[in-house]
Amino acid sequence: MLFMAEMTVHPPAWMDADEFDALKQRERELAQRLQRDGRWRHLWRIAGRYANVSIFEVASADELHEIVSSLPLFPYMDVQVTALAHHPSALPEPDNELRHELAAP
Amino acid sequence: MLFMAEMTVHPPAWMDADEFDALKQRERELAQRLQRDGRWRHLWRIAGRYANVSIFEVASADELHEIVSSLPLFPYMDVQVTALAHHPSALPEPDNELRHELAAP
Amino acid sequence: MLFMAEMTVHPPAWMDADEFDALKQRERELAQRLQRDGRWRHLWRIAGRYANVSIFEVASADELHEIVSSLPLFPYMDVQVTALAHHPSALPEPDNELRHELAAP
Amino acid sequence: MLFMAEMTVHPPAWMDADEFDALKQRERELAQRLQRDGRWRHLWRIAGRYANVSIFEVASADELHEIVSSLPLFPYMDVQVTALAHHPSALPEPDNELRHELAAP
Amino acid sequence: MLFMAEMTVHPPAWMDADEFDALKQRERELAQRLQRDGRWRHLWRIAGRYANVSIFEVASADELHEIVSSLPLFPYMDVQVTALAHHPSALPEPDNELRHELAAP
Amino acid sequence: MLFMAEMTVHPPAWMDADEFDALKQRERELAQRLQRDGRWRHLWRIAGRYANVSIFEVASADELHEIVSSLPLFPYMDVQVTALAHHPSALPEPDNELRHELAAP
Amino acid sequence: MLFMAEMTVHPPAWMDADEFDALKQRERELAQRLQRDGRWRHLWRIAGRYANVSIFEVASADELHEIVSSLPLFPYMDVQVTALAHHPSALPEPDNELRHELAAP
Amino acid sequence: MLFMAEMTVHPPAWMDADEFDALKQRERELAQRLQRDGRWRHLWRIAGRYANVSIFEVASADELHEIVSSLPLFPYMDVQVTALAHHPSALPEPDNELRHELAAP
Amino acid sequence: MLFMAEMTVHPPAWMDADEFDALKQRERELAQRLQRDGRWRHLWRIAGRYANVSIFEVASADELHEIVSSLPLFPYMDVQVTALAHHPSALPEPDNELRHELAAP
Amino acid sequence: MLFMAEMTVHPPAWMDADEFDALKQRERELAQRLQRDGRWRHLWRIAGRYANVSIFEVASADELHEIVSSLPLFPYMDVQVTALAHHPSALPEPDNELRHELAAP
Repeated sequence: MLFMAEMTVHPPAWMDADEFDALKQRERELAQRLQRDGRWRHLWRIAGRYANVSIFEVASADELHEIVSSLPLFPYMDVQVTALAHHPSALPEPDNELRHELAAP
Repeated sequence: MLFMAEMTVHPPAWMDADEFDALKQRERELAQRLQRDGRWRHLWRIAGRYANVSIFEVASADELHEIVSSLPLFPYMDVQVTALAHHPSALPEPDNELRHELAAP
Repeated sequence: MLFMAEMTVHPPAWMDADEFDALKQRERELAQRLQRDGRWRHLWRIAGRYANVSIFEVASADELHEIVSSLPLFPYMDVQVTALAHHPSALPEPDNELRHELAAP
Repeated sequence: MLFMAEMTVHPPAWMDADEFDALKQRERELAQRLQRDGRWRHLWRIAGRYANVSIFEVASADELHEIVSSLPLFPYMDVQVTALAHHPSALPEPDNELRHELAAP
Repeated sequence: MLFMAEMTVHPPAWMDADEFDALKQRERELAQRLQRDGRWRHLWRIAGRYANVSIFEVASADELHEIVSSLPLFPYMDVQVTALAHHPSALPEPDNELRHELAAP
Repeated sequence: MLFMAEMTVHPPAWMDADEFDALKQRERELAQRLQRDGRWRHLWRIAGRYANVSIFEVASADELHEIVSSLPLFPYMDVQVTALAHHPSALPEPDNELRHELAAP
Repeated sequence: MLFMAEMTVHPPAWMDADEFDALKQRERELAQRLQRDGRWRHLWRIAGRYANVSIFEVASADELHEIVSSLPLFPYMDVQVTALAHHPSALPEPDNELRHELAAP
Repeated sequence: MLFMAEMTVHPPAWMDADEFDALKQRERELAQRLQRDGRWRHLWRIAGRYANVSIFEVASADELHEIVSSLPLFPYMDVQVTALAHHPSALPEPDNELRHELAAP
Repeated sequence: MLFMAEMTVHPPAWMDADEFDALKQRERELAQRLQRDGRWRHLWRIAGRYANVSIFEVASADELHEIVSSLPLFPYMDVQVTALAHHPSALPEPDNELRHELAAP
Repeated sequence: MLFMAEMTVHPPAWMDADEFDALKQRERELAQRLQRDGRWRHLWRIAGRYANVSIFEVASADELHEIVSSLPLFPYMDVQVTALAHHPSALPEPDNELRHELAAP
């Protein structure tokens, strides 16, 4: 099942730069692992803002919540979730396995 | 370049059903042609609403505007456009040609 | 999977009362059939408004969209969907079959 | 009488993790006691957010306020309350006593 | 139980003046009957707008909904309901019977 | 003249509990004195929130501002004021003197 | 007493130009009479919009409502009223009689 | 040229009372000097809020910005500016020189 | 003086296509004449919407209002005006005469 | 490609004045370098606010994001980006090289 999540990050003013960099490094590792296993299908930056648009493919809203709430930056994010359904005019998309195989160098 | 467009359709009360169906049929044909040529990369229904989330890959905002404003349902839509940039944690995605080759039966 | 849908009805001014009553009658029949089969788990009126709060239990957002967009009043509704997940402090609820067996006279 | 309450938690940045965990533990115990006695009928997590949707069945708005304002996390919550009425298309629901009896292992 | 309802009237452009005056006359009669029986405790005009602030004292949200949705102008109103509770600093108020006895000429 | 004021309290995180309790005690004393002298006609809690709806009867907006801005909690409040006028369907209300005489034990 | 009213006009699409011009002519005559008698103290156009900012000096909110709701364009306006109080840093202003005497040619 | 500015003050929690009083004293002196020289034509308190509505008569938006941004409380204000134009139904107003001459004791 | 105006067009459903095209043709001619005389300095389409962002350089808000309200599409537009001032980090811009001389083929 | 960015600065309360001045000095130098190289085409102050309206001409949304997120004040800004397209009624504008040549003293 597909969900769109729009996440806006509000870095905590009181956290020192090193600690925040460490958080971001863990965030990136988790984001890439989730992209590789196909659950975080797309991840785009919103131009000009510390925010992203993400598309998740998960088994349930429980799994979505588990993923999003486990992100190291979750305590500093506003998140808006939109449930997506199949659009009757949409062409089929390649499945995830193929997508990443092809994208690999 | 990538843009997200969120489109909400407000069907005109005064249009008869046949005329509106004809509009929707032309909308679908154009949407599928644009998906095939790779410019309308993703098209999802927002669950529970007459609305969609779309990702366009175009050369410029001019091209995006030309596409969106040529849609048969454009006069009956509210559209919100968000410019997307590369996210530093995003893995590379397969290019369009491969995507549709793979998705084909 | 659980979804909350908040639906607000805007009756069309140009529709005559009999036609609208017929729509509402079909809406009610469908709503009750969906409650009986367990997919429309809860249905409450928002006090003072022509609006409801509903909880759906469906297999996917596709199924939710299919249900909501098939409602006879759908063309005259604003709908907001919220995906629900399990809350860690929630006690287990009886399953649907038992619920309606018990509620039956 | 039924009320929907949507609660969003904003954890205080200055509180240390142990103190906040203790608050959450007391919150959970109270939430479960109120579910068992039938006043907190439903409790769902809003997917992707530190927030919930709750349905309360209480004798009055005074009782609702007493419950909500006694929650250990109340000082860190935004709460929106919606009064619910019976919907003319709703089927009867099993009463609380039966619900939890059935849900018990 | 007390509820505040803020009602804004949007008179239908297509209704002729006589028909609308008849609606308003029936609205007024019902409003005054409900004030006399103590359920519509207060009724104030919002200065500069075709809108009111009302306080209802009813047994339940069901009764509130029954009253508000039976108003002749209900189809042309936006209504916002707020559930009110006792305020710990509030002094006791005289009951309704006494209020209207005193207000009578 | 009547004004509705909706006041939402945001207790300052940095103030210790005793100091805040002292503020609230002074707030309550002032609120009750103003209710007794008839200027703070009604005071209700908004269910589920640290907020109230109040009706003031004062000689002018200057007097209203003087009262509201002298409240001990004023620095920690959001206040929205609505000027109220006589509603043509409203029945006369008893005057203040009688109201409190009657409400007294 | 002073009130600010921000009025936005939405001319009715179905009214013919002559009828609307007649309404505007009556609106202007009333607006000027109210300015001359000192109750409509200031009247400014909001640049770029069919809207105005007005300052009224009236005895009460009842008088304000009577004036605003008697405007020929009132049925086609959105109006927002703000009650104004004396500002402690404001210098005294000349009274109305003198103002118009001075402004006269 | 006329501008309306609506200013809401958010006093900084961390500033001690004496320092803030000194700021307010300097604010008042500047506000009164600007009223005397005719550029700050009107200054009203919004009843019930730490906010004002002001009318400025200046040569340009540059001059307006210079004035507003030089206010001692500017760092603690939200400001909304509206450009005002002549309203075709407005009567002429006395010029500033006369206004203050007349208002002087 | 510079103003930004954001204009959104809502074409009237009841106007036939020829009449609306004629309006748009007159709108274009006026827009180009105002660009040539230097008062409508910039005109951009908002991508994906029937809306524009415009920068005007005019002597006053009165002149801005006169221009905007004389546009043939003005009755079908929502307009938001923002007064612009010189930014201390902005480099000087070429004046209008030179700009169009250079832009000419 | 053209983008409009509206940036509102919220200076951090905890930063001392010298540090913030240094940030602003670096911001100004970068803003002027970007104006000289033609990518930051226009920069205007929003009158009465610590905010600006900017027009960027860049190759892509990626370049826009790189620029905006590299601004020294970026962590203290709210930024709203709007993608701009060519307007069919717009006259051609001089290119950047000429603009600054002409503006140079």
